[in-house]
Amino acid sequence: MKPIEGGVTAPEGFVASGVYAGLKRNPEKLDCALVMSECECVVAGTFTKNVMKAPPILWTMEVCQRGKAWGVFINSGNANAATGKQGIANVKEMAAFVASCGPFLPSDVCICSTGVIGVLLPMDKIENGIDDCIDTLSKTGGTQAARAIMTTDTVVKERALELELGGKPVKLGAMAKGSGMISPNMATMICVVTTDATIEHDLLTTLLQSAVNQSFNQIGIDNDMSTSDVVLVFANGESGAAEIQAGSPEYAQFAEALMALCQDMAKDLVKDGEGATKFVEISITGTQNDEDAKTIARAIGNSMLCKTAFFGQDPNWGRFACAAGYSGVIFSPEDLTVALEDIVLCRNGQVAQYREEDAAAIMKRPEFTIHVSVGAGAGRGIFWTSDLSHDYVSINADYRS
Amino acid sequence: MKPIEGGVTAPEGFVASGVYAGLKRNPEKLDCALVMSECECVVAGTFTKNVMKAPPILWTMEVCQRGKAWGVFINSGNANAATGKQGIANVKEMAAFVASCGPFLPSDVCICSTGVIGVLLPMDKIENGIDDCIDTLSKTGGTQAARAIMTTDTVVKERALELELGGKPVKLGAMAKGSGMISPNMATMICVVTTDATIEHDLLTTLLQSAVNQSFNQIGIDNDMSTSDVVLVFANGESGAAEIQAGSPEYAQFAEALMALCQDMAKDLVKDGEGATKFVEISITGTQNDEDAKTIARAIGNSMLCKTAFFGQDPNWGRFACAAGYSGVIFSPEDLTVALEDIVLCRNGQVAQYREEDAAAIMKRPEFTIHVSVGAGAGRGIFWTSDLSHDYVSINADYRS
Repeated sequence: MKPIEGGVTAPEGFVASGVYAGLKRNPEKLDCALVMSECECVVAGTFTKNVMKAPPILWTMEVCQRGKAWGVFINSGNANAATGKQGIANVKEMAAFVASCGPFLPSDVCICSTGVIGVLLPMDKIENGIDDCIDTLSKTGGTQAARAIMTTDTVVKERALELELGGKPVKLGAMAKGSGMISPNMATMICVVTTDATIEHDLLTTLLQSAVNQSFNQIGIDNDMSTSDVVLVFANGESGAAEIQAGSPEYAQFAEALMALCQDMAKDLVKDGEGATKFVEISITGTQNDEDAKTIARAIGNSMLCKTAFFGQDPNWGRFACAAGYSGVIFSPEDLTVALEDIVLCRNGQVAQYREEDAAAIMKRPEFTIHVSVGAGAGRGIFWTSDLSHDYVSINADYRS
Repeated sequence: MKPIEGGVTAPEGFVASGVYAGLKRNPEKLDCALVMSECECVVAGTFTKNVMKAPPILWTMEVCQRGKAWGVFINSGNANAATGKQGIANVKEMAAFVASCGPFLPSDVCICSTGVIGVLLPMDKIENGIDDCIDTLSKTGGTQAARAIMTTDTVVKERALELELGGKPVKLGAMAKGSGMISPNMATMICVVTTDATIEHDLLTTLLQSAVNQSFNQIGIDNDMSTSDVVLVFANGESGAAEIQAGSPEYAQFAEALMALCQDMAKDLVKDGEGATKFVEISITGTQNDEDAKTIARAIGNSMLCKTAFFGQDPNWGRFACAAGYSGVIFSPEDLTVALEDIVLCRNGQVAQYREEDAAAIMKRPEFTIHVSVGAGAGRGIFWTSDLSHDYVSINADYRS
């Protein structure tokens, strides 16, 4: 497995495009993206658990349940969320418009929308955008597509990697957006993964769920779970490699590659978190089970007081201990150990011997890990988070203006 | 029932003081407070649910279980939390020191500490502080005590009120601190209520729990539940009014007064929330039960995206709908109504007809209410919250420096 150039169009048989259709105010940005396969794909997805699921999410969940698709159209600038029956009708119309370009049905097209909630899509602009996207689809269009799905993201997020399965090169590519409203179980994030591997629907769904649980579901920027979060993976089999069989060495290799790609993309999201100046890994051990460890990691990673301490570069471990304490997981304070990288700040629930300047030096790094142990259990969990900065407040106080 | 001047020393038979003992860096501030009754009181308390309970909390919980006390000593500047066995020994020593001033035992003294976590108390300074507090106890010392418990609070928080029970005037007084780390089920807050009513322990405990549930437990500034939160009520019977009997008219009157006092103090905390520029009431109706309504109210009130929208004065109701959607409460999006005061922004899950400038004008007010209904159920709940501002970040990024 090795990283390669590109994103969603790196695997064989995928084309993409990104255009400006007037959904965003700034015409120097792009706001419509299309990613298509040259043949039918197996498709799998994971979706927001928010009960206010946006119409595009409901549509795309149905496509993924059927398990076959040719591609996905994504617009930014408007989430088509909380838009009622008209929002649902608009999604159908978008899928039909995309389907007019090839030998497939509207039901073979995934639709995603991201942006402001509660405003009806300007369908005339959307249809022009779809037209332009279809006209400009190309093998080199992955980056344009990745750019078109950005909202408050400051950098384009795409990655690709290659591995060998049974002697044949197989590629995976990905693009993602999302830098606010990021919370476990998806956020205002969209990630599209493409691969030319050959794999059937149930296997792909299982592998995607596992990869998402250990990547996008363990990141947080502001703990707000959006109405529009989705991770999609399209597998078109164009590599010519044999179909991946459950339990085979190829299965393990592909699972590892998909996991690595999702983890790298998830970290990219946190690093580009709204106003983020730090990337912090919260690593928990010693719980009774992994779920408890994740719960503690999430409480620390989502605490506004911990996140402002990261921003202030202040090794104020009392806040980490405090968040662990209210996470809902029961542990004995005497079993608590808190370390910043290799410096133990708190041992057996009380302050340890360390030099304040050593701890402060670690907090000054752009990336560091906080280790928290709460006992002798075998449970462990990871959470990736950013800091809470002035810029986060500015970005979100001004969002619609 | 009417508001009167003063705080914890307004009721008969209470004295208080506040001094500077060097726990805070700024000698113009106060950091030690003592509130004492001239006779034994019935005492009741509610406490943080954080598993990392600070030693003073554990001590004071025991006092409240026994149900009798003479008063409370409180220091700010240091929470004596995550301080292990030495922290526990220090609390005992503090209680013994206070008990040296009168005809009662260390076990009759409540102890509270608030401030930084994980640092041992400087006991020499604390003992000087207790000495000075004892020497300066007075009938007019309530405000000094209220000032001495402040940490990042910007205003002194004290209130008092008077009612008539069976023809006799009865008074209640209160002081509180806390403007960050505020979350339901207590936060880094301390509230001390005094009353000269006569009431036995179990009744007082029941009334306090009920009052706290509908006041301090429905406020949020940053959703961080501290290791040191406590509400204490001392009743010394010095009004000479007859003992309050369960189910009597006097019981209802006293309950109402205690509730009103706790609600006013809770609102004062939110209004002085770290960096707060807004006081927002989230009012939820239409759920199956009250608990679900509180859950939705809390999700909206604690959402960083909603709170930055409050700060930005942006009637971005999609964020309120989104937070309701991920609260964990199941409802049908078609049943969702969102209103800002009397302006309906969203009806049946989609945008309503309203003028953007009318909604924006309400958001510009220092106080407003957001109404959310999710169906036809009889459940209702309230949450009081502040906005998330640049100053919140500054205050918490710089806390220890």
